[in-house]
Amino acid sequence: MKEIIECVPNFSTSNKDVVDSILKKIKETENVFLLDYTYDDYYNRLVVSFFGDKKSVLEGALNSAFRAIELIDMRNHKGQHPRLGAVDVVPFIPIKNVKMEDCVKLAKKFGQILAEKCGVPVYLYGEAATRSERKDLDWIREGEYEKLTEMMAKPERKPDFGPAKPHKMAGATITGARKVMAGFNVNLGTSDLTIAKKIAKALHSKKGGFSNVKAMAALIPEKNITQIGMSISDFEKTPLYRVFEMVKVECARYNVPIVSSEFCGMAPLKTLIDIAAYYLKIDNLTEHRVLEIAIQNAIEKGDVFE
Amino acid sequence: MKEIIECVPNFSTSNKDVVDSILKKIKETENVFLLDYTYDDYYNRLVVSFFGDKKSVLEGALNSAFRAIELIDMRNHKGQHPRLGAVDVVPFIPIKNVKMEDCVKLAKKFGQILAEKCGVPVYLYGEAATRSERKDLDWIREGEYEKLTEMMAKPERKPDFGPAKPHKMAGATITGARKVMAGFNVNLGTSDLTIAKKIAKALHSKKGGFSNVKAMAALIPEKNITQIGMSISDFEKTPLYRVFEMVKVECARYNVPIVSSEFCGMAPLKTLIDIAAYYLKIDNLTEHRVLEIAIQNAIEKGDVFE
Repeated sequence: MKEIIECVPNFSTSNKDVVDSILKKIKETENVFLLDYTYDDYYNRLVVSFFGDKKSVLEGALNSAFRAIELIDMRNHKGQHPRLGAVDVVPFIPIKNVKMEDCVKLAKKFGQILAEKCGVPVYLYGEAATRSERKDLDWIREGEYEKLTEMMAKPERKPDFGPAKPHKMAGATITGARKVMAGFNVNLGTSDLTIAKKIAKALHSKKGGFSNVKAMAALIPEKNITQIGMSISDFEKTPLYRVFEMVKVECARYNVPIVSSEFCGMAPLKTLIDIAAYYLKIDNLTEHRVLEIAIQNAIEKGDVFE
Repeated sequence: MKEIIECVPNFSTSNKDVVDSILKKIKETENVFLLDYTYDDYYNRLVVSFFGDKKSVLEGALNSAFRAIELIDMRNHKGQHPRLGAVDVVPFIPIKNVKMEDCVKLAKKFGQILAEKCGVPVYLYGEAATRSERKDLDWIREGEYEKLTEMMAKPERKPDFGPAKPHKMAGATITGARKVMAGFNVNLGTSDLTIAKKIAKALHSKKGGFSNVKAMAALIPEKNITQIGMSISDFEKTPLYRVFEMVKVECARYNVPIVSSEFCGMAPLKTLIDIAAYYLKIDNLTEHRVLEIAIQNAIEKGDVFE
């Protein structure tokens, strides 16, 4: 088994033709595997998950980004999720036999090539950040696409690659390296966005909530409900079940039912193990005690069945 | 990837030297992987989980059974778990690229060889059963080791292989084929075995509980608590979380706290997915959305990373 790197690019579109065209570019890239994608109108955003080795994952990221920059015009873009550009954010994630620093290198290569070939300004974030404040996506995204010209004029917002002004159609792009994170949405049985915002605030790290958690509220008009969209950047330290229990606590306060929830992107096994261990009070549950994983690990180590 | 069969033999011992000696036989068998083992004094029972291909898994099962028959004397055996013999039960379980009928053949081969070489009577159960009532372990185990001579004299209890009377030291053995099942123990904060038995009864399929569930109560003297030991033979139809919720309901009735719980043997991924989906109301959770499994599946199908 060679190295495995996951890439989870976020594109500012929910147009089916554009989505298909971007996905096609990923599927066509040799040695790249598409894992998952989701898109919807209320965020107007496409989130893709794919993996490959160093070479193929970089190619897949570039191929799809080139296509997105061709097709997406940010001047017409509306959506409830904060965004800077057509190719909004492109994280590289070490999964197996690679180090974080390999992913940092990939992000820098990706950013450099994208800026050179497309003239799009690129910021590095997360583990690839060149200044400590840029570790944080929200800091870089302040003002969003609409205020990008103004924000980029500030010296501290000079991009890491490319021109110090936005690409007219594509805005700017953020790329970087990070650990696997958990994306999780909870749907609330209320159309009152004020309540959803209060609950999101209770969870968000910068607003007194859990460290490692970002949360936002959105309206889903076609269902007449609201959604808490959250990401947990370190779910080993801040387990998903604990954040969910806090959603329950705050929902009870406002008499709002939880309708359903969903992983946004892939579900990391550790989050499921923590959920089972908590709700069933299981003492001895680890990845190594999950049948399918234990078998896979034994075969990889022993390597006698092939 | 060739075929994968799991074997989960249950031996009537908790003597550390005997346990080590049995495990050594499994570890020494070529192309066999030991996944897990547990043993304790209150059940006086060793449960091992290992896997291999058809040839190796049969060898591992036989090697360990021969050793157990040499070392375990049932005439001195006491334990809270029902048992017929030294090598009490040996199920073969299809995991990958094998059919149930392959496991039925393995069980029959195992039983035939064990009876021939050791003179131990062997019953076939589960999918390997030769009569419908023998599908059920409990039916075969009625009377346990102590009444084995008397029970085996009955025509309907004639073994499938070997003599129609017990082996003096080793009793009788049951072998067969079955699907993956979930073994799960819940520890209750009471030393009152009467209450634990009532709760176990509420769960057991034959006593009005859930179909696919067997449950028994045991005392754990060193901790001064009781334990509900259960097995769910079809956890797709009868999910673990639902059985656990019923334990909670009955515990509340008797004001007994749930101290902890544990998987007995390996945890099937599906049980964890069902737990997460239930407690967090997750809509879209399947095996294919679990990151580690999705990556493994993609690699196995695509086969380009090796």
